[in-house]
Amino acid sequence: MKKLLLQLDPDSHASFFDTVVGYDGGADEVIGYSGVTTENVRALVEGAIFTRSPKEKCNTAIFVGGSDLDKGMAVFEAVQSYFFADFRVSAMLDSNGCNTTAAAGVACLARTTSLTGKRVLVMAGTGPVGQRAALMLAHEGAEVSISSRRMERAMLCSELLEKHYGIHAAPIEAATNAARAQALSGFQILFSAGASGVNLLAEEAWRVCPELEVLLDANAAPPAGLKGVDIQDRARERHGKKAWGAIGFGGMKLALHRHCIAHLFERTDHVLDALNIYELTSRMS
Amino acid sequence: MKKLLLQLDPDSHASFFDTVVGYDGGADEVIGYSGVTTENVRALVEGAIFTRSPKEKCNTAIFVGGSDLDKGMAVFEAVQSYFFADFRVSAMLDSNGCNTTAAAGVACLARTTSLTGKRVLVMAGTGPVGQRAALMLAHEGAEVSISSRRMERAMLCSELLEKHYGIHAAPIEAATNAARAQALSGFQILFSAGASGVNLLAEEAWRVCPELEVLLDANAAPPAGLKGVDIQDRARERHGKKAWGAIGFGGMKLALHRHCIAHLFERTDHVLDALNIYELTSRMS
Amino acid sequence: MKKLLLQLDPDSHASFFDTVVGYDGGADEVIGYSGVTTENVRALVEGAIFTRSPKEKCNTAIFVGGSDLDKGMAVFEAVQSYFFADFRVSAMLDSNGCNTTAAAGVACLARTTSLTGKRVLVMAGTGPVGQRAALMLAHEGAEVSISSRRMERAMLCSELLEKHYGIHAAPIEAATNAARAQALSGFQILFSAGASGVNLLAEEAWRVCPELEVLLDANAAPPAGLKGVDIQDRARERHGKKAWGAIGFGGMKLALHRHCIAHLFERTDHVLDALNIYELTSRMS
Repeated sequence: MKKLLLQLDPDSHASFFDTVVGYDGGADEVIGYSGVTTENVRALVEGAIFTRSPKEKCNTAIFVGGSDLDKGMAVFEAVQSYFFADFRVSAMLDSNGCNTTAAAGVACLARTTSLTGKRVLVMAGTGPVGQRAALMLAHEGAEVSISSRRMERAMLCSELLEKHYGIHAAPIEAATNAARAQALSGFQILFSAGASGVNLLAEEAWRVCPELEVLLDANAAPPAGLKGVDIQDRARERHGKKAWGAIGFGGMKLALHRHCIAHLFERTDHVLDALNIYELTSRMS
Repeated sequence: MKKLLLQLDPDSHASFFDTVVGYDGGADEVIGYSGVTTENVRALVEGAIFTRSPKEKCNTAIFVGGSDLDKGMAVFEAVQSYFFADFRVSAMLDSNGCNTTAAAGVACLARTTSLTGKRVLVMAGTGPVGQRAALMLAHEGAEVSISSRRMERAMLCSELLEKHYGIHAAPIEAATNAARAQALSGFQILFSAGASGVNLLAEEAWRVCPELEVLLDANAAPPAGLKGVDIQDRARERHGKKAWGAIGFGGMKLALHRHCIAHLFERTDHVLDALNIYELTSRMS
Repeated sequence: MKKLLLQLDPDSHASFFDTVVGYDGGADEVIGYSGVTTENVRALVEGAIFTRSPKEKCNTAIFVGGSDLDKGMAVFEAVQSYFFADFRVSAMLDSNGCNTTAAAGVACLARTTSLTGKRVLVMAGTGPVGQRAALMLAHEGAEVSISSRRMERAMLCSELLEKHYGIHAAPIEAATNAARAQALSGFQILFSAGASGVNLLAEEAWRVCPELEVLLDANAAPPAGLKGVDIQDRARERHGKKAWGAIGFGGMKLALHRHCIAHLFERTDHVLDALNIYELTSRMS
């Protein structure tokens, strides 16, 4: 019996990235749906829970992705609301790769230096990856701040983290490269989570920070989010700091993402989201 | 050469249920298309009939599904209109699982009691499953009635059955649970085909019918269509009657649906619809 | 690791024809996307280039299809614009089967008679297949003309061939069957590339042309584009000329199309378009 991964995506094209990793994670078939909402997801979930016997059902699993974390969270919740008795399958949320990218990035930082008590800035951190990285960093005992171009977005993000997970992340406004350079002062670790292909900081800006120990750029498409960090960097020594590029920790991200997919097919009741995905990084070599 | 199942679905998301059963029925790949209409189906059919040599062509088949039986029937007819000479593949119609669900339900009833000459009510029977159940029950020699919330819908359904298949099914209006309870009087068999998650009858309503021998609820999502029937019931004795729940005969439905898919790949000229799908139930253990 | 073919299609339904041939060409999975534009293709390409290590990446490839060659060319160009360094996969353009159909047709003509210096008419030749056939015929040294119902379309097509490939194809207006019959006078070879299911020429019209040696009809759906040519014809002698029907050279087309797909997975930097697809016909038996 084939392992079928039901890929639910609110975007107009289901993420091909997620499809590829679904296959590489061990799904025999990945069936992607675009335009998925809380309104239309019921029939898809019923197709997952009513088509196979209880013993066969661990061969079906659900992956919720797409670029928008709010929509993804709503769909993920709706999916679970249609489960009852034995009529359930394992499910995972990873909108925009938020959980696996953040978890891999934070795990690489944690292997480079201790995070406990450290001052960490999640720059451009109100997107899916930034939000989840802040949560995981706080979970590791770091003192987290989140910067955004607009103060209201940073504050909203901070409030949501407080409300949903009980963690504190200080909001910071930093609208320009100059403002971000200034905001970086005093931080020991930098997790840059800006949009693909946008430069956030000049090389000089982080080179001159004496307290900065480690910096990570989650952006994989040129130009770099942090100038002077190469996408291939793996804890590479640069100006006395250790740098991680998106491809540098991308191997861990892909391995983790694939591992999560394989994990879904082990049982019918796994619910993989931020912190239990982060915990799976301990199994990564 | 891979066995490819072309899944044509008029809905905005191709049914994941049908996709799963397509795989479990032996297709190597199920390629689902949503939004399929009589207007745009031609290129899809041409892709099925022009891509493989006559000897290879039994590895391609077409499944027409979706929630709307009228649309499904129109697409199914259009599909066949593009076949010519050897340029054809096997095809199956099963909008909303109408044929396989109805066939499995009726086959289970037929194994519980003789249907010949019996008075059977198909309750909430104007939908895809109800219509096909009425046809199969009449084919087995039962005296069939169809109830609907609105008389005009019951009558329309009755007329279509007469016109297309030459069978008689008496229309009954029953808009409320109370009306349905009253309408049930005198029937020996009840096939409940209402929408998913809608209760149609209280337990007391069918308990008190002395002539009722067998009752079947095709609704799989809670709450039950017939209160007091459990979705797991398999000819289970309840109040002196035998009850079937959706999961109870769901094993037969899934086995039949899978068998039909396997059947499609045996030749290039199978056309599976109501009665020949029902006939395949004789092969089910 | 599975060979994944990313099928990008600007139409509202990704071509099932291309999906089938993708599988038959050796892809383990064909993942089709409809509604693909230069605006939304970036994330899909990033999913192809960021998901696998450099050594694994030859297991991912991109196919651009759909019915509209202009849109296909734009998407194909956009796809390549997102490649950088080792972040690239092999890609192929074949909107409406233009390259593989034209290449197979021209290769069959070339095996029937020498094309060098011959006067060739590509009838109804402004569509994808006609344009590419004109290019390949000119590449083989033929003297090519293109006819269209409207002179302006023939001229536009002629200008584009001159501009993009430096080849000359004389534009001809021929709006009716009678006009096409007249236009045919003096040509030695006829490549008919009209829309599916439209008759362009009576049998008498080509029978009476003394100079005509070979004629080919690329239309596979009845009625024939050229009356008197059977879709199964393979250089069949008819009225002293040799005739090719769509199924007659369709075997070569399918074999070539499949071969191209297999070719994509050999490296990460193949870019298959008109002339290098034509060159691959030399490998076809």
